[in-house]
Amino acid sequence: MANNDDQFKRVVSHAKEYGYIFGSSEIYDGLSAVYDYAQNGVELKKNIREYWWRSMVYMHQNIVGIDAAILMHPTTWKASGHVDAFNDPLIDNKDSKKRYRADVLIEDYAEKLNIKAQKEIDKAKKRFGESFDEAQFVATNPRVLRYKEEQQEVLARMARSLEAEDLADVKALIEELGIADPDTGSKNWTEVRQFNLMFGTKLGASAESATDLYLRPETAQGIFVNFLNVQKTGRMKIPFGIAQTGKAFRNEIVARQFIFRMREFEQMEMQFFVRPGDEIKWYEYWKETRLKWHLSLGLGEENYRFHDHEKLAHYANAASDIEFNFPFGFKELEGIHSRTDFDLKAHEKFSGKKLQFFDPELNENYVPYVVETSIGLDRMFLAVLSNSLQEETLEDGSSRTVLKLPSILAPVKAAVFPLVKKDGLPEIAHEIIEELQWDYNVIYDEKDAVGRRYRRQDAAGTPFCITVDHQTKEDRTVTIRHRDSMEQERIAITDISAKISKSISYKDWLS
Amino acid sequence: MANNDDQFKRVVSHAKEYGYIFGSSEIYDGLSAVYDYAQNGVELKKNIREYWWRSMVYMHQNIVGIDAAILMHPTTWKASGHVDAFNDPLIDNKDSKKRYRADVLIEDYAEKLNIKAQKEIDKAKKRFGESFDEAQFVATNPRVLRYKEEQQEVLARMARSLEAEDLADVKALIEELGIADPDTGSKNWTEVRQFNLMFGTKLGASAESATDLYLRPETAQGIFVNFLNVQKTGRMKIPFGIAQTGKAFRNEIVARQFIFRMREFEQMEMQFFVRPGDEIKWYEYWKETRLKWHLSLGLGEENYRFHDHEKLAHYANAASDIEFNFPFGFKELEGIHSRTDFDLKAHEKFSGKKLQFFDPELNENYVPYVVETSIGLDRMFLAVLSNSLQEETLEDGSSRTVLKLPSILAPVKAAVFPLVKKDGLPEIAHEIIEELQWDYNVIYDEKDAVGRRYRRQDAAGTPFCITVDHQTKEDRTVTIRHRDSMEQERIAITDISAKISKSISYKDWLS
Repeated sequence: MANNDDQFKRVVSHAKEYGYIFGSSEIYDGLSAVYDYAQNGVELKKNIREYWWRSMVYMHQNIVGIDAAILMHPTTWKASGHVDAFNDPLIDNKDSKKRYRADVLIEDYAEKLNIKAQKEIDKAKKRFGESFDEAQFVATNPRVLRYKEEQQEVLARMARSLEAEDLADVKALIEELGIADPDTGSKNWTEVRQFNLMFGTKLGASAESATDLYLRPETAQGIFVNFLNVQKTGRMKIPFGIAQTGKAFRNEIVARQFIFRMREFEQMEMQFFVRPGDEIKWYEYWKETRLKWHLSLGLGEENYRFHDHEKLAHYANAASDIEFNFPFGFKELEGIHSRTDFDLKAHEKFSGKKLQFFDPELNENYVPYVVETSIGLDRMFLAVLSNSLQEETLEDGSSRTVLKLPSILAPVKAAVFPLVKKDGLPEIAHEIIEELQWDYNVIYDEKDAVGRRYRRQDAAGTPFCITVDHQTKEDRTVTIRHRDSMEQERIAITDISAKISKSISYKDWLS
Repeated sequence: MANNDDQFKRVVSHAKEYGYIFGSSEIYDGLSAVYDYAQNGVELKKNIREYWWRSMVYMHQNIVGIDAAILMHPTTWKASGHVDAFNDPLIDNKDSKKRYRADVLIEDYAEKLNIKAQKEIDKAKKRFGESFDEAQFVATNPRVLRYKEEQQEVLARMARSLEAEDLADVKALIEELGIADPDTGSKNWTEVRQFNLMFGTKLGASAESATDLYLRPETAQGIFVNFLNVQKTGRMKIPFGIAQTGKAFRNEIVARQFIFRMREFEQMEMQFFVRPGDEIKWYEYWKETRLKWHLSLGLGEENYRFHDHEKLAHYANAASDIEFNFPFGFKELEGIHSRTDFDLKAHEKFSGKKLQFFDPELNENYVPYVVETSIGLDRMFLAVLSNSLQEETLEDGSSRTVLKLPSILAPVKAAVFPLVKKDGLPEIAHEIIEELQWDYNVIYDEKDAVGRRYRRQDAAGTPFCITVDHQTKEDRTVTIRHRDSMEQERIAITDISAKISKSISYKDWLS
């Protein structure tokens, strides 16, 4: 745990130092759980978005994109259920005036029981040494058993109460467990209330009353309300998909873990419309296809796992998460959901419009079923960034910090250095940049010794460094240095472009 | 005027029919002045954004990008002046309960005087025929002179009152002119009040009070608050620029002209930080550079003009618009503004942080001056779309609708057709697509006669159509047909990629 915590801290500070992520409005001491993408971050984010878009839209003849607005007609969110049911159970402490998520307070209590059990296990491990049988100890030690049992009971009761919307019992549970305000220790709690997570705003278009709008809490509904327009104008036949990337907003009370859970975030979603009855086949197809996409980036197969949902949301008949091994453990990175016809039917009901497809093979109209793939772009960014940041000990005993980003995603593909700031070398470096800049982002650096420049680019994640030296003037060759292997080759200037292009070919990465 | 109105209507309906723009939440009868980008629109928008990004960021070694959040610390908007001064003067009609922009009511009144003058001119033109000297007539006809004079007086008085924030006089002017509610004819008006154009929302993070936030009304401030972080972590030296694309929101009371003025829109902005005193040099540089960018797309030099501002905003010491010839006339497409040190100084004052650059050549610290280039992505989209939509009469007397988009911006670069749906031709068409899809968006179409498929792609703006026929099976050649010239060539399958790539090379378009 300690190591992972350290790694997470390293990621956060590296992200700032190397221009990936800044806190929002830092000069005003920040806006909690909102972040800005800095000069390298914006490029990495853009490249991830493009990698997803190409694999979803360009590689599938039956998928097209859209870009729906963030502001939508408010009835959209009645139909989707967000107005009535998109809530967090909140509780206020009357003394400290602090507000908490009631479920998080209880989960934290349960986690403490888990930590206590772990402490007993660690103690025993120390005492018995190599001969220690952990499974047997856990199954038989009364103290450990009691902690584990209580933990399960607490979580089960909370789940039951929330499911039954029995908020009084959630409060009763907090009081029975003696949970105190983590900041002040006060146990003087208000009732538990549901708090809607949508950000509201007002469209002031008429004198009589402003219209209440919401910032969309998910991008999916922008696809559903456009389903028929896209199907008709795009002449799409089932099965077909609509893909979208864009911002969504949730007024999270407790937003944590850097860019993992933000109030403003970006989703990359695809809704795949299928014939009713075919949805499980397509659900399996998309689970497999999406995992393959993740694996194509080479972050390590061991860092992904499926988590199939046992308890399903009201709109789903199958759901699975692709979890990634973040520095804080395996957490949801992407969801694949078989959403049935819930959303389209709800929009039919609230809009009074038919949202159906005429299937020429079956010779009938139906509301399609939907299989969704939904990935958080910011989470994907964090997965890539945290996985790529590595401390290496070199052969000579020194160490280097290197950001081993997949080259297809790297913000800057190459840095071009003149060995010295004179003798016409900077001019040649600029000529090289002017040739490469049409195809990707390339930068120039002339400051400090070349060794230091290499280290700087290693830490920034740049896959190639090209050095122009005095030999370049004689034979038009340069040194190209590879970030990961640190190997250097001498190649002709005219071969640089092909060398780099080969390492960032979508065809090679995606197929 | 009538022709242009017709052209504008054609653009709007074509945009829907061919999957470029849909009204937002159409199934709920739409959300006024908000639009969704459809399957072709999303690609055109993406391509325009990329064309801008490459020219600004990749082609300038001293410009980097960022992507700041839409939600910012609220003090940002105090510093920028938006909380106090980003207002429209509104007036309500007490009978109809309708709300209007007071300045627009007065402008419409003034425009009517102009129309009356024009009618007199047209009448005289008709009477005198070829010998008519319009300039002389306007200068001497008492009726025309009176209309023109009154028009100028009205506009001048309104400008004076707004400048002096004398809203009572704005109301008095409306009453003196006898302006009535355009819908109902009622002259029963309320006072004129200032209405802030920012969308507000609440961040509900604490029990005591929610924090009032705004949806950013412009992207520029996201750059200013990050100025020092970018300068330091990116090791930037003055002069340097920070570029950004992203959504902004304005609660426009009267939003008009399709996607020209929307409540939710996207900006592409670059703030260039320069040494104080150098700003006019850079302002001229960016005027020229940005116009060159526009001209590179080939929409016609005659469709652009500069409009230098005589009256400057409080933060500017020079400002010019690049206006484009939209179907509704020349209107602002991009602004180039010399913003002085107004914004950075304001943020220094409100944040208490120094936002200065140490200039090693001058050996002194200063707050940089800023030259901004700011273009509306949606307006650029409308400029490209409306300019490209053409009705052509062909040699055989028939006509075709063709969307002559610059190929670098076209949503789909090529459509691949099997001549017939059998004999293995569809399979070859799919093989071709599978080769091309790694580099750009390519689609398959097998429905209807080839001639109809050509017309469909003409109207959708696809620059190339590739037809696979029976000869293809023998010699691996296809027909490639060019959208604009309608010429067809027979080329080898292996040459398709090079042919298309050549026409969509950033290097050729941008240099």
